[in-house]
Amino acid sequence: MLNILMIGDIVGNVGRNAVRDVLPSLYKEYNLDLVLANGENAAGGKGITYEILQELYNYNINIITMGNHVWDKKEILDFIEYERTLIRPANFPEGTPGNSYVIYEIENNIKVGVINLLGSIYLQPLISPFLIIDNIINEIKKETQIIIVDFHAEATSEKVAMGWYLDGKVSGVLGTHTHIQTADERILPDGSAYITDVGMTGPRNSVLGVKRDLAIQKFLTQMPVRFEMANGKGQLNGVVLTIDPLTGKAKSIERIQKNL
Amino acid sequence: MLNILMIGDIVGNVGRNAVRDVLPSLYKEYNLDLVLANGENAAGGKGITYEILQELYNYNINIITMGNHVWDKKEILDFIEYERTLIRPANFPEGTPGNSYVIYEIENNIKVGVINLLGSIYLQPLISPFLIIDNIINEIKKETQIIIVDFHAEATSEKVAMGWYLDGKVSGVLGTHTHIQTADERILPDGSAYITDVGMTGPRNSVLGVKRDLAIQKFLTQMPVRFEMANGKGQLNGVVLTIDPLTGKAKSIERIQKNL
Amino acid sequence: MLNILMIGDIVGNVGRNAVRDVLPSLYKEYNLDLVLANGENAAGGKGITYEILQELYNYNINIITMGNHVWDKKEILDFIEYERTLIRPANFPEGTPGNSYVIYEIENNIKVGVINLLGSIYLQPLISPFLIIDNIINEIKKETQIIIVDFHAEATSEKVAMGWYLDGKVSGVLGTHTHIQTADERILPDGSAYITDVGMTGPRNSVLGVKRDLAIQKFLTQMPVRFEMANGKGQLNGVVLTIDPLTGKAKSIERIQKNL
Amino acid sequence: MLNILMIGDIVGNVGRNAVRDVLPSLYKEYNLDLVLANGENAAGGKGITYEILQELYNYNINIITMGNHVWDKKEILDFIEYERTLIRPANFPEGTPGNSYVIYEIENNIKVGVINLLGSIYLQPLISPFLIIDNIINEIKKETQIIIVDFHAEATSEKVAMGWYLDGKVSGVLGTHTHIQTADERILPDGSAYITDVGMTGPRNSVLGVKRDLAIQKFLTQMPVRFEMANGKGQLNGVVLTIDPLTGKAKSIERIQKNL
Ligand SMILES: [Fe+2]
Ligand SMILES: [Fe+2]
Ligand SMILES: [Fe+2]
Ligand SMILES: [Fe+2]
Ligand SMILES: [Fe+2]
Ligand SMILES: [Fe+2]
Ligand SMILES: [Fe+2]
Ligand SMILES: [Fe+2]
Repeated sequence: MLNILMIGDIVGNVGRNAVRDVLPSLYKEYNLDLVLANGENAAGGKGITYEILQELYNYNINIITMGNHVWDKKEILDFIEYERTLIRPANFPEGTPGNSYVIYEIENNIKVGVINLLGSIYLQPLISPFLIIDNIINEIKKETQIIIVDFHAEATSEKVAMGWYLDGKVSGVLGTHTHIQTADERILPDGSAYITDVGMTGPRNSVLGVKRDLAIQKFLTQMPVRFEMANGKGQLNGVVLTIDPLTGKAKSIERIQKNL
Repeated sequence: MLNILMIGDIVGNVGRNAVRDVLPSLYKEYNLDLVLANGENAAGGKGITYEILQELYNYNINIITMGNHVWDKKEILDFIEYERTLIRPANFPEGTPGNSYVIYEIENNIKVGVINLLGSIYLQPLISPFLIIDNIINEIKKETQIIIVDFHAEATSEKVAMGWYLDGKVSGVLGTHTHIQTADERILPDGSAYITDVGMTGPRNSVLGVKRDLAIQKFLTQMPVRFEMANGKGQLNGVVLTIDPLTGKAKSIERIQKNL
Repeated sequence: MLNILMIGDIVGNVGRNAVRDVLPSLYKEYNLDLVLANGENAAGGKGITYEILQELYNYNINIITMGNHVWDKKEILDFIEYERTLIRPANFPEGTPGNSYVIYEIENNIKVGVINLLGSIYLQPLISPFLIIDNIINEIKKETQIIIVDFHAEATSEKVAMGWYLDGKVSGVLGTHTHIQTADERILPDGSAYITDVGMTGPRNSVLGVKRDLAIQKFLTQMPVRFEMANGKGQLNGVVLTIDPLTGKAKSIERIQKNL
Repeated sequence: MLNILMIGDIVGNVGRNAVRDVLPSLYKEYNLDLVLANGENAAGGKGITYEILQELYNYNINIITMGNHVWDKKEILDFIEYERTLIRPANFPEGTPGNSYVIYEIENNIKVGVINLLGSIYLQPLISPFLIIDNIINEIKKETQIIIVDFHAEATSEKVAMGWYLDGKVSGVLGTHTHIQTADERILPDGSAYITDVGMTGPRNSVLGVKRDLAIQKFLTQMPVRFEMANGKGQLNGVVLTIDPLTGKAKSIERIQKNL
């Protein structure tokens, strides 16, 4: 059995510190073979830098997925082409810098494909994830049956529909972006693990990572507020999948919440 | 201690049957004093009728809250004014039919205020919930300290911000609308119970209640699809709050998932 | 010189009657070679039927374009495949019924290509018009240099950007959908005619075709209102392009407003 | 008769220069009594500064209205309270800095009320303009019958509906925000002048003021693009209203387009 951890959106240095402090014990507890994390908010809530990417690798995260915040730090354009284990949503037009999936070899020739997809509802107008996902899956299936999709999306309808659409075609459809872990993790009838949202790894007493007073002020005044990341205690959110490496079917999905 | 159950959006007859079949045992298991439920999808996914409202009362739900689907069945206009225990979002303009909160007397003169609020993000353009909630709370506080808010909203940012904004002012801020239960239930520092979404009570193998093939078809074709409610096994989602009746503070919040 | 009339969104029977009553004199006044019209609202404001399509042909409209309301009348699926001169937005996924462009032969072997495109902002999540338009233009250019684009979109930014993007590649970029004629018609530097919106052909004292009291009621109450098309005097909105058939360049664009 | 000019959204220094170069001759040609202008984009496309406000006053603009970009330059908070002739949308919550209307005395004791309103569709979630406008009108009517509304909104449906709603209550409902002048100016049956959008005063060969290559690049790549204001020839867009000062009724509305 293959044990894969997916960590929910890492927000700022509180989130990175939570990874640093918690991941080693998770490696042991779950005998992890592979660790994925959504890193779209790793650099102070907005995008990712080269240094922070290396920091996350140093904490033994293997693959970083992104989302709607992928381009927030312009410098990502300097390295996104060369970082095979940093992937951005596949919905961007042809010719967009970076890779939208990666096939990662763990050991014993076991390969895992990881895909990053963006939702079409309430986000920017890109190609629908439903129209492009089959081609990518077919491409990866030439090399491996083990495929994880990070579906970074807002609307629960779209996420759940994608779960059902991909059931049996992939090992797991794991939602990100809302920064709130959902309690609907399950193995769908044809063997795909599913959760609407993996959650957030960052400051616990915050509004999705932002200082709560600033977020409230924004809603009360409707005037522009410069958001700052919250400090204080961190949390790590994630899910651990157990996958049969021969079939790519998921056997279990378990939610992880570690509060520091 | 007061034990209050809030049931997440009841969808169609599968959802109503789940209430019928599960609620009696929940009454016993949790020694419930009061049961609330979101009923905006109770009539085939769209709104509520008089008959269905009575059916829900017969299952021993005490108070029904609504949401963006409140007006889907036009006949609600015939009875919404007279049904004190059926409440609709408070954000509608002055003069809108129906009540947006209710003060309900349980026993021993214990009163519980329940408020229904709609989010401002991605939904219709109404008055912001942040601008009207304080007045309603102050009104209710003349009679009781025990107040539950059903915050029916889409964006996690707005829901979490409302939780922090109301922490210490109410007994609980319970999110509805996304139909997916979240795993972030907690007692906030000043004593308010909080959860981003209570979840859905309806057909389990569905897309928020809708037949999954139809929902997928909609995403694949982008053409109009007439949605039908799914059949099959149901689920009940909810949360149980334990509240100190003297202070109105929440002592615990526990997620409920019952799969039939 | 080629004289082409494009008629703005025809709304209901008031709009169709306006065409019937005004088009004959426009044919004479402008010596028209070809008449296009947007027909997405021709059937009582919502979609088009076979009978109404024939009615519009009988009024000597040659080509009907559609928009976001294309599927409002389900029966369009019965004939959209066979009607070469009825086109629907090109942004729908591959395999969608109907044609998204037509090459129409006028006389003397002169051919005109007409393309229907939907905007990506505030409308449903389809493939961006910017990503598909070049291929369609190249396809048509194998047969003719004379190309008209009906760009059915909401946001002025997207429409103006499309005008500049296609300047020199097509004979005209003519906006539809807002139902309000704009006053920015011009020949762009590289020879394409442009207008942000051609306007509406329908009831003049209305809200985009809808009875004005109902539209106001909707804004005042935020409750559902069943919209009915307005009666009363009609108007025809359109633009006449003069195009050099040898080069496909536009020589002039003139706004038409006829109030009955 | 009173002659009032309303100038459409002034964008950056090209727009301000257009005002400087064209307004003197408009004063003569139309014998203007009062000049209003939307200034939300006056400072490089984003908001307004104190210096630029003074510059616009120096060009003999009497009253500046704003819109969704009102807070783009934070320094507006330093002076918005003291500038009676700078008004911001009325829909912001109570307690928001600045005034949302002004009563301006021209001469011979003639007073003109000017109101700034924001639309509710596709913009931020504020109080609906339909729910607040009557109170403001009633307040102003204690002093004058002559009232102009700058309705800064995106959706044509909302703008047209507001025109009908206010017909007979005000002298004019003048739309702004889309930066494209519409050709639907008219005097409504009960005496209010109406136009869906006054247009833009700024760089003519641009996308709403932005360099057109950058706007196109944004649509093509869907990646972030830092917008810069276009250079080159300017244009001034506006409308001149003729109003009967005794009744407040509009007698005429004429569109102005001056291309430099
Ligand atoms: Fe995120
Ligand atoms: Fe995100
Ligand atoms: Fe619901
Ligand atoms: Fe809802
Ligand atoms: Fe239309
Ligand atoms: Fe349309
Ligand atoms: Fe503007
Ligand atoms: Fe604006």
